[in-house]
Amino acid sequence: MLHPDRLLPSEPGVRSIARRLYESVAALPIVSPHGHTDPRWYAENEPFPNPAALFVTPDHYLFRMLYSQGVPLEALGIPRRDGGGGSVETDPRKVWRLFARHYYLFRGTPSRMWFDHALEQVFGIEERLSERNADALYDRIEAALRRPEFRPRALFERFNIEAIATTESPLDPLKHHARIRDSGWGGRVVTAFRPDPVVDPEFPGFTENLDKLGEITGEDTGSWEGYLAALANRRAYFKSFGATSTDHGHPSAATADLPRDEARALFAAVRRGTASSADAELFRAQMLTEMARMSLDDGLVMQIHPGSLRNHNGVIEERFGRDMGADIPMGTEYTKALRPLLRRFGNETALTIILFTLDETSYSRELAPLAGHYPALRLGPSWWFYDSPEGMRRFREMTTETAGFYNTVGFNDDTRAFLSIPARHDMARRIDCGFLARLVAEHRLDEDEAQEVAHDLAYRLVKQAYKL
Amino acid sequence: MLHPDRLLPSEPGVRSIARRLYESVAALPIVSPHGHTDPRWYAENEPFPNPAALFVTPDHYLFRMLYSQGVPLEALGIPRRDGGGGSVETDPRKVWRLFARHYYLFRGTPSRMWFDHALEQVFGIEERLSERNADALYDRIEAALRRPEFRPRALFERFNIEAIATTESPLDPLKHHARIRDSGWGGRVVTAFRPDPVVDPEFPGFTENLDKLGEITGEDTGSWEGYLAALANRRAYFKSFGATSTDHGHPSAATADLPRDEARALFAAVRRGTASSADAELFRAQMLTEMARMSLDDGLVMQIHPGSLRNHNGVIEERFGRDMGADIPMGTEYTKALRPLLRRFGNETALTIILFTLDETSYSRELAPLAGHYPALRLGPSWWFYDSPEGMRRFREMTTETAGFYNTVGFNDDTRAFLSIPARHDMARRIDCGFLARLVAEHRLDEDEAQEVAHDLAYRLVKQAYKL
Amino acid sequence: MLHPDRLLPSEPGVRSIARRLYESVAALPIVSPHGHTDPRWYAENEPFPNPAALFVTPDHYLFRMLYSQGVPLEALGIPRRDGGGGSVETDPRKVWRLFARHYYLFRGTPSRMWFDHALEQVFGIEERLSERNADALYDRIEAALRRPEFRPRALFERFNIEAIATTESPLDPLKHHARIRDSGWGGRVVTAFRPDPVVDPEFPGFTENLDKLGEITGEDTGSWEGYLAALANRRAYFKSFGATSTDHGHPSAATADLPRDEARALFAAVRRGTASSADAELFRAQMLTEMARMSLDDGLVMQIHPGSLRNHNGVIEERFGRDMGADIPMGTEYTKALRPLLRRFGNETALTIILFTLDETSYSRELAPLAGHYPALRLGPSWWFYDSPEGMRRFREMTTETAGFYNTVGFNDDTRAFLSIPARHDMARRIDCGFLARLVAEHRLDEDEAQEVAHDLAYRLVKQAYKL
Repeated sequence: MLHPDRLLPSEPGVRSIARRLYESVAALPIVSPHGHTDPRWYAENEPFPNPAALFVTPDHYLFRMLYSQGVPLEALGIPRRDGGGGSVETDPRKVWRLFARHYYLFRGTPSRMWFDHALEQVFGIEERLSERNADALYDRIEAALRRPEFRPRALFERFNIEAIATTESPLDPLKHHARIRDSGWGGRVVTAFRPDPVVDPEFPGFTENLDKLGEITGEDTGSWEGYLAALANRRAYFKSFGATSTDHGHPSAATADLPRDEARALFAAVRRGTASSADAELFRAQMLTEMARMSLDDGLVMQIHPGSLRNHNGVIEERFGRDMGADIPMGTEYTKALRPLLRRFGNETALTIILFTLDETSYSRELAPLAGHYPALRLGPSWWFYDSPEGMRRFREMTTETAGFYNTVGFNDDTRAFLSIPARHDMARRIDCGFLARLVAEHRLDEDEAQEVAHDLAYRLVKQAYKL
Repeated sequence: MLHPDRLLPSEPGVRSIARRLYESVAALPIVSPHGHTDPRWYAENEPFPNPAALFVTPDHYLFRMLYSQGVPLEALGIPRRDGGGGSVETDPRKVWRLFARHYYLFRGTPSRMWFDHALEQVFGIEERLSERNADALYDRIEAALRRPEFRPRALFERFNIEAIATTESPLDPLKHHARIRDSGWGGRVVTAFRPDPVVDPEFPGFTENLDKLGEITGEDTGSWEGYLAALANRRAYFKSFGATSTDHGHPSAATADLPRDEARALFAAVRRGTASSADAELFRAQMLTEMARMSLDDGLVMQIHPGSLRNHNGVIEERFGRDMGADIPMGTEYTKALRPLLRRFGNETALTIILFTLDETSYSRELAPLAGHYPALRLGPSWWFYDSPEGMRRFREMTTETAGFYNTVGFNDDTRAFLSIPARHDMARRIDCGFLARLVAEHRLDEDEAQEVAHDLAYRLVKQAYKL
Repeated sequence: MLHPDRLLPSEPGVRSIARRLYESVAALPIVSPHGHTDPRWYAENEPFPNPAALFVTPDHYLFRMLYSQGVPLEALGIPRRDGGGGSVETDPRKVWRLFARHYYLFRGTPSRMWFDHALEQVFGIEERLSERNADALYDRIEAALRRPEFRPRALFERFNIEAIATTESPLDPLKHHARIRDSGWGGRVVTAFRPDPVVDPEFPGFTENLDKLGEITGEDTGSWEGYLAALANRRAYFKSFGATSTDHGHPSAATADLPRDEARALFAAVRRGTASSADAELFRAQMLTEMARMSLDDGLVMQIHPGSLRNHNGVIEERFGRDMGADIPMGTEYTKALRPLLRRFGNETALTIILFTLDETSYSRELAPLAGHYPALRLGPSWWFYDSPEGMRRFREMTTETAGFYNTVGFNDDTRAFLSIPARHDMARRIDCGFLARLVAEHRLDEDEAQEVAHDLAYRLVKQAYKL
């Protein structure tokens, strides 16, 4: 099912160059510096329960497509948090069959390629999923999942993961990470510091979150200074569990650099819960600059992931909660938005800020020019909806000429779908090698250089940028 | 003149796949669910008058290009509505010669390919138009037009049109459609409900239009409730003439879902003619939601075509009127704009809203993520300036990975140039097959699947989405 | 080092067409209608001092990339205007070595291709720059620079430059141009009128600039009428030194067409220095329309280059001054912004306004539709960060289908890097020929037509549009 030349350019001359490049990087270890796998898997090392729970129910890339074509989420076994609606399907085999019947919807999408890759590489299944073979494939996968070599740690090793980062809230006690650390298992699983719940005044439960942050750290999160100290405290705690990075998922890329008095007054307003929406935006903006300052102190690499309107579908949020495939990108401005932060810290060579976008128009217009100038800036890979062959190709075509390859940081899988990790990294390597092969074929780069760049993009740059 | 492999990818391996795909869909009937051909043609079935009146004078794609290079519209035989200016050319042969002399301007444009296609496929002319052969070609075309097989209905049949939609104002009595229906002719020509003249307070004659709407329907269009009832009444009338869709050409994609009292008050202001520009925008926004509600009732598919600044050139509008090639696209936001409507109706599986854009940046950033989630949404094909090889290719490259193929609805020709219809549909089929062939050649899709998708894109999806 | 087929499409069939097209235009003279070379070079005809001063220190394309990767500007020999910081490197050989050590950073960028082209074509060096050969290459280049055939005028002739424009402020006495004119040398070097220092109220020294403008011209620049007369006076002066164009580098594309009283009052405010930022924007907007009016009088072609946020990095500006690689593009709107000017002058066939952009999203959405309609408008080539293979390719793909080739104006190198001029023009010819070859290979254009278009894009259109 998986052709050895898949995703490489079709022109035979370019393909043969691409194949040589790819062969030199295909077997490199996976470094996954940003993602959302569940640390419990590595901590407890329990078997994945069944094919539907492994592939379908937790993967919003999959169920959003089915939902868009009229399949109710309940029929996919997704529980309603409001208890209402029709009955939720509890038979995973029926969920699987429903997925199989609609598998044609994924034609042309990366989800299709990731799924096929996992079927073949993980389970040795070499046929395309269909309504016809749904039950047979279910049985094979379910049987495999009971075997020890399909438990999380065994797969982690089989996937040749050198290091993986999960993402946690500052309020998380990191008990799974502690258990992994204490287990003696050699897999490197680190956390990443995602402070949105305590720096975004519009995050659900913000006030309570700050109370809790105070309790955990023993700092007075009623004052601006105490709040900042509490954050620094938790950053140190995360570092002790291997964290090398922070991550910031704001609606926009706005930054601010307020005088201390104004910042303090703004904090007082958001702490009281009296902040307007504009205040909340300004506070988030100020916090990016505060986080950059702390990064300069403690060395954590800073990631900024702006531009998603979360929970766009209010009906789905009420019924099923957050992260249900209804986050929709918005146009995102960077040139003016980042200026306050960059004025303060952009010239620091000891700081690394990695920028992501859901607005591809910013690649060539704003992000590549910014990263091609400021020492503190690097460009994260094409993200989320753009973690795809065409998305990756556009990323290279639109950033390389201005920012070069060396202001980028390799690949992030950014996934909670564990079995898609090897497929995603493999896709990125293939697309990057295809892009490099075109440059070689058009005599814009020599092949020995392309070989070096391919290795850098697949392995070296991510380790360097994320200090892994 | 027309190469059998035109528009297919040039790499021989990909081309041979594309050719196989194309051959399987080339002869499928044309379903044209959205367009602007004149129903009078099919009703009266009179000969087209002459080559200039057939090809040049009514086609703003053509005369805008000539105008941009200094050719006065008067010289192309386009009458001034203000009676001023130099004398208008009345000899169609001279208009044709002028067009021929400037035909080189269309190099690299779709107009060029559509025109060549019509010359060869309709008139059997296999030479490129030039100043040299202008008269000879004029004579051949003019002679052909006098023959019965070049009358509208004969061409309709020869073009293998299974169904075509025209577009009419709610104030239109649909007399041509009535005549077609009563004629016993088997061609399927349906209308589409385009309410801009009665839902856009900034449409010329809005107040009089509402008066007239009241007269036609017997409803009191002085009240909000009467106005809505009048619209529902006309929708039913259009349905009785085969309409399966509505169409909305607003400046932006703004939608609103006002409480009834506010909607009523807003209507009162626009009805009185005292509405501000912001009120007008809000009223249009509210009306999209009202129209969606009516669509849920009566089953008409809803099309939203936003983002054109109409009549950008005030001088041209004053002299020649509307639709003179001076409509210019604007950046168009969808994520926030559509939220009120989608909150209300986005989860309805019985509703179909087809979104179009003139802002290609919205394809991957907003439209594909929206259509890849909401059951009520589908994506219309690349439109107007993007009804072109590169435009269609970008549409597939930027929407497929997130929305798949099955949240799109096949092709629309959207044209008033009757002879370009087969050329446009053929172009779309070729480009789609070329895109699919690349996926096959890169082992991202199997050829049997691509074959099925090609058929769906050329024929099945449009019939399904538009209920034709 | 330079492959004869570099930058041509890799597919053999397309490449062979592209090669034929390219061969027919490769040797055409260079017409460079917009650039920033120093007229002093041609006036004094002194040798370039050394390899670092020739290639590295003045080229912000190069040093911005090195700076982005942590190389201090001081280490590249760039002087600090504030006198602070570490010592500035004064040994050009050390600067060259530093550049060589970081040369890998330019992989995939046009700077890399321009530099290689200059090494081989100008200096006969056929090896890639590296840390290893840095000294040897330095010696070879330095030795060459002492020879008469490497002086500016000799290179000008060797580069086959038919005409080149420099860019000067209205306050510039044009003494270098006078010296060139009086020297009897046959090279055609013309100036271009860049009035930003006297039409942009936010330009450093604006008030003093206006005083000086008054002195130079003998007009009263304290009054609106006197100010306009002074500008007309300087335009005439520039014309007497061969200028055929003006150039306008505003932050946005905003235009205005104020009643005379309002314009006069606005001028009074900006003249007094009491104008707000919004006033300044409105004044720039008004001045574009005034300049268009003067262009209609004196025949100077008008260029509008909007969309750069100049001197984004305040720290760098304070330390090193302007034009230090820290100008960052912004999203730029044209459809509404240009309307006031176009309402007034857009239908003038005797006027040429050439639009540029740093926002590629405007190509297909706004610029091509505008230029494909208004007789006064033409599209400038892909600019600055987009003067690159992918940038040029996207320009053609996104503008041709709507505006055609004949609403574009050939290539601009826009450079202060003299030795990159032949490389840049060669790149543009190759990319255009590759684009045309694809159209031919896909049977969208005949090869005889493509040949004609290739010639037009390389030579004829630029001469015609810029009246050179």
